[in-house]
Amino acid sequence: MHPAGDAGEQSDGRRLRGDRTRAAILARAVDIASVEGLEGLSIGGLAAELGVSKSGLFAHFGSKLELQLETVQAASEVFTEQVWQPVSESDPGLVQLGALIESWLKYFRDEAFPGGCFFSNAYHEFDSRPGPVRDSIVTQKRRWTAALVHHARVAQKLGQLRADADPEQIAFELDALGSLCNSLWQLERDERSFERARAAISRSLLAAATPSGRKALAAAGLTSSV
Amino acid sequence: MHPAGDAGEQSDGRRLRGDRTRAAILARAVDIASVEGLEGLSIGGLAAELGVSKSGLFAHFGSKLELQLETVQAASEVFTEQVWQPVSESDPGLVQLGALIESWLKYFRDEAFPGGCFFSNAYHEFDSRPGPVRDSIVTQKRRWTAALVHHARVAQKLGQLRADADPEQIAFELDALGSLCNSLWQLERDERSFERARAAISRSLLAAATPSGRKALAAAGLTSSV
Repeated sequence: MHPAGDAGEQSDGRRLRGDRTRAAILARAVDIASVEGLEGLSIGGLAAELGVSKSGLFAHFGSKLELQLETVQAASEVFTEQVWQPVSESDPGLVQLGALIESWLKYFRDEAFPGGCFFSNAYHEFDSRPGPVRDSIVTQKRRWTAALVHHARVAQKLGQLRADADPEQIAFELDALGSLCNSLWQLERDERSFERARAAISRSLLAAATPSGRKALAAAGLTSSV
Repeated sequence: MHPAGDAGEQSDGRRLRGDRTRAAILARAVDIASVEGLEGLSIGGLAAELGVSKSGLFAHFGSKLELQLETVQAASEVFTEQVWQPVSESDPGLVQLGALIESWLKYFRDEAFPGGCFFSNAYHEFDSRPGPVRDSIVTQKRRWTAALVHHARVAQKLGQLRADADPEQIAFELDALGSLCNSLWQLERDERSFERARAAISRSLLAAATPSGRKALAAAGLTSSV
């Protein structure tokens, strides 16, 4: 219960509507940025697109920079929902690693964003533009790499990956194969990119796995393409 | 000898100066586009940057589209010079394939363009923007992939790759590993990206190679990191 009674409820209602508006604006901003780049976003252009006033949008986002940073955050929430959440209950270790990569490939194929993976585009757009937007994108990339390395380390502790396997090397290889799959899918719309990525990912995991790791992957249906 | 005598020589001289100016303009355009994107190029902006008149630049490039297409072409010439030419005399087959990939990694490390690999950026910028610029970028990507597949096929014919190896799969894997190396180098400036890419590339080649292929790679110093 809100201590301020009716007035509080009214203010909550206004904030809720404000939050919804903000979320709707950011959803559109993410879509635009996935096609035209984060630099292609402008408060004026977005206002025209949404049929709202520029000053109204300025009330939500004080600057282009703030809009860009919140757009990265909104895209990160979509990524969390579509890629991380579906595998949050998977068996820890090799199965969760394989499932996370599979979830990522599915997110490419389902085209969560009209211009392809928001982050792949943003890495390339901002890698040579120092500043807060680049920093926030680098943070996202590190979070992704760290998750892959983490799952590989857990797999190693569980005896699913050989003691001489290198979790960072495995993370690099899986990331490389999935990233090119996304690029080629965007450029060529060729389903074979997914087959090639899956085949190489399975081979990379199996090469580093112990017999118990291989068994876990097979039981989870994560080595079908090999 | 030019049939038109003095007048012809004078006109040749003017054309030469015109060609040089055009090449200098395009070199600058490639640098700008590697940082700010091909969409960030404009005839007005480029004229201001070069300290020349906008109408002068319009005389060279009739439109932004023409400028973008010629910029892609100019970047392709840099790529040819830095990546293809150094390996054009390599032994055909697995050695030429390995040398081409090594030449590509060196080109990333040497930073031929201030904003990182021009083409990696362009693929991501234009993959969702249909039109002649996207077409010309897709052509470049196909030329690259086709070269990798070609060298792998030659290697297979020469008995350096196993008969059951898939040249297109090998091309996909090498392309993926090199591409992520470039992305991470641009984002993190971490030399280990190169070590990881080289280790995985060597392993991918060695896994598909016959004993004679392995011997050829070792003789060419292309498996040192394994």
